[in-house]
Amino acid sequence: HFREYFLQLHPYDRATLYKKVEPEQRKKMYYYLSPKELAEIFELSEIDDNDYNVFLKEMDATYAAEMFANMFVDNAVDVLNELEKSQVVSYLTLMDKESATEIKALLHYEEFTAGSIMTTEYVVIPQDSTVRSAMTILRNAAPEAETIYYVFVVDDDERLTGVVSLRDLIIAHEDTFIHSIMNERVVSVLVSEDQEEVARTIKDYNFLAVPVVDFQQHMLGIITVDDIIDVLEEEASDDYSKLAAVADMTTFDKNSLSAAKKRLPWLLILLVLGMLTANLIGAFEETIAQVALLAAFIPLIAGTAGNSGTQALAVAVRGIATRDIEDESKFKLLLREAGTGLLTGLICAIFVIGLIFVWKQELLLGLLVGAAIFVSIFVATLSGSFIPLFMHKMKIDPAVASGPFITTLNDLVSTLIYLGLATTFISGL
Amino acid sequence: HFREYFLQLHPYDRATLYKKVEPEQRKKMYYYLSPKELAEIFELSEIDDNDYNVFLKEMDATYAAEMFANMFVDNAVDVLNELEKSQVVSYLTLMDKESATEIKALLHYEEFTAGSIMTTEYVVIPQDSTVRSAMTILRNAAPEAETIYYVFVVDDDERLTGVVSLRDLIIAHEDTFIHSIMNERVVSVLVSEDQEEVARTIKDYNFLAVPVVDFQQHMLGIITVDDIIDVLEEEASDDYSKLAAVADMTTFDKNSLSAAKKRLPWLLILLVLGMLTANLIGAFEETIAQVALLAAFIPLIAGTAGNSGTQALAVAVRGIATRDIEDESKFKLLLREAGTGLLTGLICAIFVIGLIFVWKQELLLGLLVGAAIFVSIFVATLSGSFIPLFMHKMKIDPAVASGPFITTLNDLVSTLIYLGLATTFISGL
Ligand SMILES: [Mg+2]
Ligand SMILES: [Mg+2]
Ligand SMILES: [Mg+2]
Ligand SMILES: [Mg+2]
Ligand SMILES: [Mg+2]
Ligand SMILES: [Mg+2]
Ligand SMILES: [Mg+2]
Ligand SMILES: [Mg+2]
Ligand SMILES: [Mg+2]
Ligand SMILES: [Mg+2]
Ligand SMILES: [Mg+2]
Ligand SMILES: [Mg+2]
Ligand SMILES: [Mg+2]
Repeated sequence: HFREYFLQLHPYDRATLYKKVEPEQRKKMYYYLSPKELAEIFELSEIDDNDYNVFLKEMDATYAAEMFANMFVDNAVDVLNELEKSQVVSYLTLMDKESATEIKALLHYEEFTAGSIMTTEYVVIPQDSTVRSAMTILRNAAPEAETIYYVFVVDDDERLTGVVSLRDLIIAHEDTFIHSIMNERVVSVLVSEDQEEVARTIKDYNFLAVPVVDFQQHMLGIITVDDIIDVLEEEASDDYSKLAAVADMTTFDKNSLSAAKKRLPWLLILLVLGMLTANLIGAFEETIAQVALLAAFIPLIAGTAGNSGTQALAVAVRGIATRDIEDESKFKLLLREAGTGLLTGLICAIFVIGLIFVWKQELLLGLLVGAAIFVSIFVATLSGSFIPLFMHKMKIDPAVASGPFITTLNDLVSTLIYLGLATTFISGL
Repeated sequence: HFREYFLQLHPYDRATLYKKVEPEQRKKMYYYLSPKELAEIFELSEIDDNDYNVFLKEMDATYAAEMFANMFVDNAVDVLNELEKSQVVSYLTLMDKESATEIKALLHYEEFTAGSIMTTEYVVIPQDSTVRSAMTILRNAAPEAETIYYVFVVDDDERLTGVVSLRDLIIAHEDTFIHSIMNERVVSVLVSEDQEEVARTIKDYNFLAVPVVDFQQHMLGIITVDDIIDVLEEEASDDYSKLAAVADMTTFDKNSLSAAKKRLPWLLILLVLGMLTANLIGAFEETIAQVALLAAFIPLIAGTAGNSGTQALAVAVRGIATRDIEDESKFKLLLREAGTGLLTGLICAIFVIGLIFVWKQELLLGLLVGAAIFVSIFVATLSGSFIPLFMHKMKIDPAVASGPFITTLNDLVSTLIYLGLATTFISGL
């Protein structure tokens, strides 16, 4: 009764229910569901990494091993990669040899590469098949393959030579030869390619899947669009985390301790960097002692520089991620940012001079703050775009030069400009 | 010769080439390519909104109209929505009546809803068909439909009653009735639903497409996964823009003026808010005049509060976007954030007391700064998570309470705490 109701649900809804119920009820599920049925739940990337261990411990090891054998290889590998090495070995020994071999072949690919997200359950047909025989191969492969909507054509050496969509197959006459309808200009990705590049390919070409090959064009696997959506979301979260100075936002924290652990490293590093600014201001102690009101504008100037630096940085990081920047020359971008910096700096400066005049009837102080803001915005905008471009060139993730670093740098520079100018013109204030 | 070479390329590569060449060469393309062939290029979301107008002006109006008629309706609507109203009307009058009607039906849906991204080119079959007749319908529809991998089953009133995948169809026996193999628990989305919710559904269920219905379950269209990838990327860019205080990062700026236009509104608003902090510090002029070194730590304290506020905010905004937060109760989240605030505040405070002691051999000043940092971090973390949750509850986009606003708020609060404490304990310094 439970079994029937449960299996009527979509696997995603099953997974939601499975996660929500008490351990005792889950134990009943292990009794009522076959390892293959449970595998469908574990396939979904909806289970938190920390929960895998909890759930797996509730199961019999043989049952768990059989479940892994029934998962699509890429998903099995995803879960196994979250476990202890010894645990992985024991599951692999408990499952059938074929599945174990398939899984082992995928376990060693480096994280964030095409190899680490591909699966080996795809359909290949020989070049000299007819549409009829291709359809037979497809029907037989359907229950096991991750997708049957693309069929890949390989030569005798397993080299990828073409691709046919099921759409083309069902339109074609049954006696047609595959090589006459296949697309020979097949787009593929290298097994060592970054997953972000793979995502970009699938997005640009509107593919449902992309074949993965080695340098000799041997077909090694496929990557499907559902996994690419997860990659895109993971990468966006990653850039976003870095802009916000949190170590890793891709998994959601359940308690204060784990949340604090992700935030503290950044806060502490930024504190140390902040001490540099404090030190710098301390060096101008005398100037401030003479005109204490000067201190009032330090956060304003540093903040404005920080804001424009973050804007320029964010545009550059996002532009690199979405490949908008690769197209245009980097020099052109810097030129544009220099212009933007001058323009925004000038307008903000005029605005702040007006504000201070209205508020304090001070023109000289306003001119000083305005000048500092103009120069700071220009420097912040230019460095905010130059630094990520430079890091990208050096093959460092540009998001690492994250917002807070840029902000601290801008604190330093803008404070130096402001207090330096103030000290020079102090007699006038 | 050119035509053959060009048509061999994948539409994405054709689009890349089309955008890159000189206007004269594009004019040759309009001569060599049929409106249908050019439509394939315009389908791709790779063309900038600003460029549409440029390209369309190069073409004959009748040619352009015929091109629109040959695009998938959703894509035609996307492009037309970027044009002047009068221009849209003239293209609609120039094209065949059927296409014009199809396009008009989709033009009026509100932006960011399911209706605005759906297409009406899908395959439906009656409930009482057999697999054989379904396959015939499918073969006929294949050249026109956006996807043939899902076939939707409707009753006599056009109500959605089920879905069958092409995978199931090609495995089934030809005489099987559709209603015996179709999935009756079909997941659909309402036409008025937010596009972000639709994206979440496709992502969670790993669908290639999802049907769009009205309140009476009448089928109105489908949304395919390739368009959902674009939505996810657009929404991620949108949240990211707000965290970085840029008006809109979804399209890439070509010149300084348009870039400055997107950044200035934020910079100016934040400047005005920054003046509040300056005003507040100004009120403590006397305290600072007495101990000028106090000013040195203002940016440090404000910066640290800003950083922890942004962290909490980013986690909340991202959690809401990825639905991680809906699951757990909001009260639990606030409790967790309070704990995180206390923990990070305490550790940062101890750290900074140590730093100042080492650097200046000042214990009292250190204690003052430490206390201010402790309270500021706690307040910043709590408000950084409370504010977006509250806005989400009020149905306002939580990302609007963006990083910079939180930062300015934290500037104010932390400066007040610090200088307030300093004024109280000034005799000891
Ligand atoms: Mg297997
Ligand atoms: Mg993996
Ligand atoms: Mg990467
Ligand atoms: Mg696309
Ligand atoms: Mg997969
Ligand atoms: Mg996955
Ligand atoms: Mg990245
Ligand atoms: Mg049409
Ligand atoms: Mg649209
Ligand atoms: Mg998914
Ligand atoms: Mg579409
Ligand atoms: Mg689109
Ligand atoms: Mg949003």
